[in-house]
Amino acid sequence: MKIKKIPENTLERLIIYLKILENLERKNIDFISSEDLAKNCGVNSAQLRKDLSFVGTLGTKGVGYSVKSLKFNLKNFLGRAQEWNLILGGISPLGIFLLQNKSLQKEGFYFLAAFDTKEENIGKVYNGVSVYNLDQLSYVLNAIKVDIGVITTETDPEIFLKAFVEQGVRAIFNLSNVPLFAENPEVKIENFSFSMALTKLSYFLKE
Amino acid sequence: MKIKKIPENTLERLIIYLKILENLERKNIDFISSEDLAKNCGVNSAQLRKDLSFVGTLGTKGVGYSVKSLKFNLKNFLGRAQEWNLILGGISPLGIFLLQNKSLQKEGFYFLAAFDTKEENIGKVYNGVSVYNLDQLSYVLNAIKVDIGVITTETDPEIFLKAFVEQGVRAIFNLSNVPLFAENPEVKIENFSFSMALTKLSYFLKE
Repeated sequence: MKIKKIPENTLERLIIYLKILENLERKNIDFISSEDLAKNCGVNSAQLRKDLSFVGTLGTKGVGYSVKSLKFNLKNFLGRAQEWNLILGGISPLGIFLLQNKSLQKEGFYFLAAFDTKEENIGKVYNGVSVYNLDQLSYVLNAIKVDIGVITTETDPEIFLKAFVEQGVRAIFNLSNVPLFAENPEVKIENFSFSMALTKLSYFLKE
Repeated sequence: MKIKKIPENTLERLIIYLKILENLERKNIDFISSEDLAKNCGVNSAQLRKDLSFVGTLGTKGVGYSVKSLKFNLKNFLGRAQEWNLILGGISPLGIFLLQNKSLQKEGFYFLAAFDTKEENIGKVYNGVSVYNLDQLSYVLNAIKVDIGVITTETDPEIFLKAFVEQGVRAIFNLSNVPLFAENPEVKIENFSFSMALTKLSYFLKE
């Protein structure tokens, strides 16, 4: 199937719609009008309908959207109907937090292995996930299929990026303090740090 | 001083430039050409120069940018030359992680108090930060000046948003599982969750 490429901003809004629908479902709401859904999602209903046209979901006149079926379609569209395998790069407080936290598993994201470069961390196990030496990456990846590399190191994230990409990992979630960019257009990197997000707010407050 | 309003995408790139410059400084690099800096930041040099024109910083022909002075100007521009006071809403694993982690303090973001609605959490202290009942918010805020509210609750983030905004907190960093939107245009909300970021990657991989 040929898929229309959607703009980054649209993608981000579709993900918000999914989160809001999951919350409506938790509240046992079955149907919602496009006006109410739009309001919940911080957009107007014309924008909502335009965005949802990419997913191919239409509401029913007078009834609105079925929360369950729109959520189902969005999950499919966004690749969230399936499970994804993750590896972690860099044992740090945030890395350990992510390995120990079970909420990502509930959403279908599973850590299978962790890697580090410091001898003292190798062999540790967090929530059933073993820490291997980064040198062993290709060996470990022979045994498992990995979709996403999560970089949580506090030093030298470039080393983990290079190793992950060389071993064919195409999606990188970079939570280190240094934004990373891929030379290869087949590789997608998502950069996030708490301080980057807070800086958007400090700029707003200063202005 | 009248400030030109900058687009959200430009702001996000300026924050990336700051992070990259901080990393160059850690590596003791004093000067960098706009071409090399652009490459490090995942943009082309025309884009970099255009973005930096908002900050009013110009490189020197043949020498490039001084890493220290460009970083200094960017920090000022982004409101990061000063310190910011934070409160936390919702004792959750992520909330406790943020209170206990010292890296935000190093960047000038200080948690002064935490709030929760569950009786068993009130009175606990994490890394010197006390947990108060959300009912006591206005009382506590009489004693401290708060800039940013960080929402980390696992349930009912709307309750914390409403309380924070009613008490005059204008900047909200929402890390709960439910995206929030402000009705008041004077309030800025930054929504983030690990699963939302990972969904951008799952969409990329599925495509």
